[in-house]
Amino acid sequence: MPFEPRDPAFEARVRASFTRQAVTTTLQATMTRVEPGEVEIELPFRQDLTQHGYLHAGIITTIVDSACGYAAYSLMAAQAEVLTVEYKVNFLAPAQGERFIARGRVTRAGRTLTVCAGEVVALQEGREALIATMLTTMMAVQGK
Amino acid sequence: MPFEPRDPAFEARVRASFTRQAVTTTLQATMTRVEPGEVEIELPFRQDLTQHGYLHAGIITTIVDSACGYAAYSLMAAQAEVLTVEYKVNFLAPAQGERFIARGRVTRAGRTLTVCAGEVVALQEGREALIATMLTTMMAVQGK
Amino acid sequence: MPFEPRDPAFEARVRASFTRQAVTTTLQATMTRVEPGEVEIELPFRQDLTQHGYLHAGIITTIVDSACGYAAYSLMAAQAEVLTVEYKVNFLAPAQGERFIARGRVTRAGRTLTVCAGEVVALQEGREALIATMLTTMMAVQGK
Amino acid sequence: MPFEPRDPAFEARVRASFTRQAVTTTLQATMTRVEPGEVEIELPFRQDLTQHGYLHAGIITTIVDSACGYAAYSLMAAQAEVLTVEYKVNFLAPAQGERFIARGRVTRAGRTLTVCAGEVVALQEGREALIATMLTTMMAVQGK
Repeated sequence: MPFEPRDPAFEARVRASFTRQAVTTTLQATMTRVEPGEVEIELPFRQDLTQHGYLHAGIITTIVDSACGYAAYSLMAAQAEVLTVEYKVNFLAPAQGERFIARGRVTRAGRTLTVCAGEVVALQEGREALIATMLTTMMAVQGK
Repeated sequence: MPFEPRDPAFEARVRASFTRQAVTTTLQATMTRVEPGEVEIELPFRQDLTQHGYLHAGIITTIVDSACGYAAYSLMAAQAEVLTVEYKVNFLAPAQGERFIARGRVTRAGRTLTVCAGEVVALQEGREALIATMLTTMMAVQGK
Repeated sequence: MPFEPRDPAFEARVRASFTRQAVTTTLQATMTRVEPGEVEIELPFRQDLTQHGYLHAGIITTIVDSACGYAAYSLMAAQAEVLTVEYKVNFLAPAQGERFIARGRVTRAGRTLTVCAGEVVALQEGREALIATMLTTMMAVQGK
Repeated sequence: MPFEPRDPAFEARVRASFTRQAVTTTLQATMTRVEPGEVEIELPFRQDLTQHGYLHAGIITTIVDSACGYAAYSLMAAQAEVLTVEYKVNFLAPAQGERFIARGRVTRAGRTLTVCAGEVVALQEGREALIATMLTTMMAVQGK
């Protein structure tokens, strides 16, 4: 991925913002990888977030939205904030597994808008299954 | 809405399924309205589901996906289950308010696929603000 | 629709821009209605734009994208241009009919981004059938 | 791409169907590649399909919808037809160039629904620029 971060301290900035997010703490998600334009977030299976025994589509969406949002944020200027403009998600297989990995990757970083592709895989007994794919638009908001 | 439910006991079926959902219990969402092809779900504001002080986009999505899914489900045959095929959500304003109402409405009910439109409004001091709009495809799975 | 156009000459500006579009002339589409935040475009059925005898999904998309784009444009400042950021379309029924009407309507007009909802109906022997529904993000680009 | 076509004569079937499409003939698009689950369609620049001098978003969509639809169709049984259920497209850069290549690739092939990813690149003076990215759901209809 040939992205050049504008802010050399991007990783610390991304990780600090993720830690401040109440929702991902509540869900017990962890950020497992931060590269320029690429972020990975992991979530353990939790019975209390299910529907019909599978992780709810909205929870899957929460982690892949975060992965894409932080992928976009990693390329933004130091004082910018990131907002989700919109996303589209296709669900490809039931969300069953011991844990889930959401991967967000910048497709095109613009001055105002950044387009990202995301995916979520389920891990079960060492095997990885693709369960969701996302296409999303993020926006840089000049800060505070 | 000129929809004729195939299952006369649709409301009891919808409410029973909603009650069995772990995730909506965890989020403390309640189902406030069930009509043929139309469902409303309410969520109180919760600090522990926020990002930057606003309800997280993924949580907003969780309740409007449920509202649309159950709107589709209300028109399905008694033994069918409903699956989310895909959705697209646009976020229109920050998710701030005392509580949030997600409304799902069937646009077209097919034999296999049902298309729904959803919206989420935030309520604050008696005023309602539109914060998200959804377009989604649901699928009937012939049951168990 | 409670939209107040910023440019009082919005209708003339919208119609002039539509007339300059090569593609809609080529398709023989006409603009049948222009209100603040709302535009209607009509297309006759054409055998040479079909797939399996129905109007191609991409052609349906072309006219509803135009209707939404001009609905957004009608609310923009006089010197702005409008760009399609992204859209999502669901196809609800086969595109058969004597003519097709695409309707675009602004859901939320922001300073930079405008979200619109669109629909396409087919007309056949006086009856109207909903064949497509769109959710889209448009962007104002400050001019020339 | 590890897809196994169900119909060994998939390529001839795909190419014959493409040739019967009125719209792609009208647009002068050509099918430049057919693999199991992967199709490429090329379109020359045409002034009469432009808006503000760029190829119209709807025309870009027409060719990438075709590429994705035929990618899905290549993996279907011999007697099936393919329908576009829905798509979402992000436009990443102005559609300028001498010609455009749309690539459709199956992400997941189900019994009824197939999810595809598509992209469109513009070619100008030997350089390739990504101008659009698509995420779409196709449906197999048991045929005629």
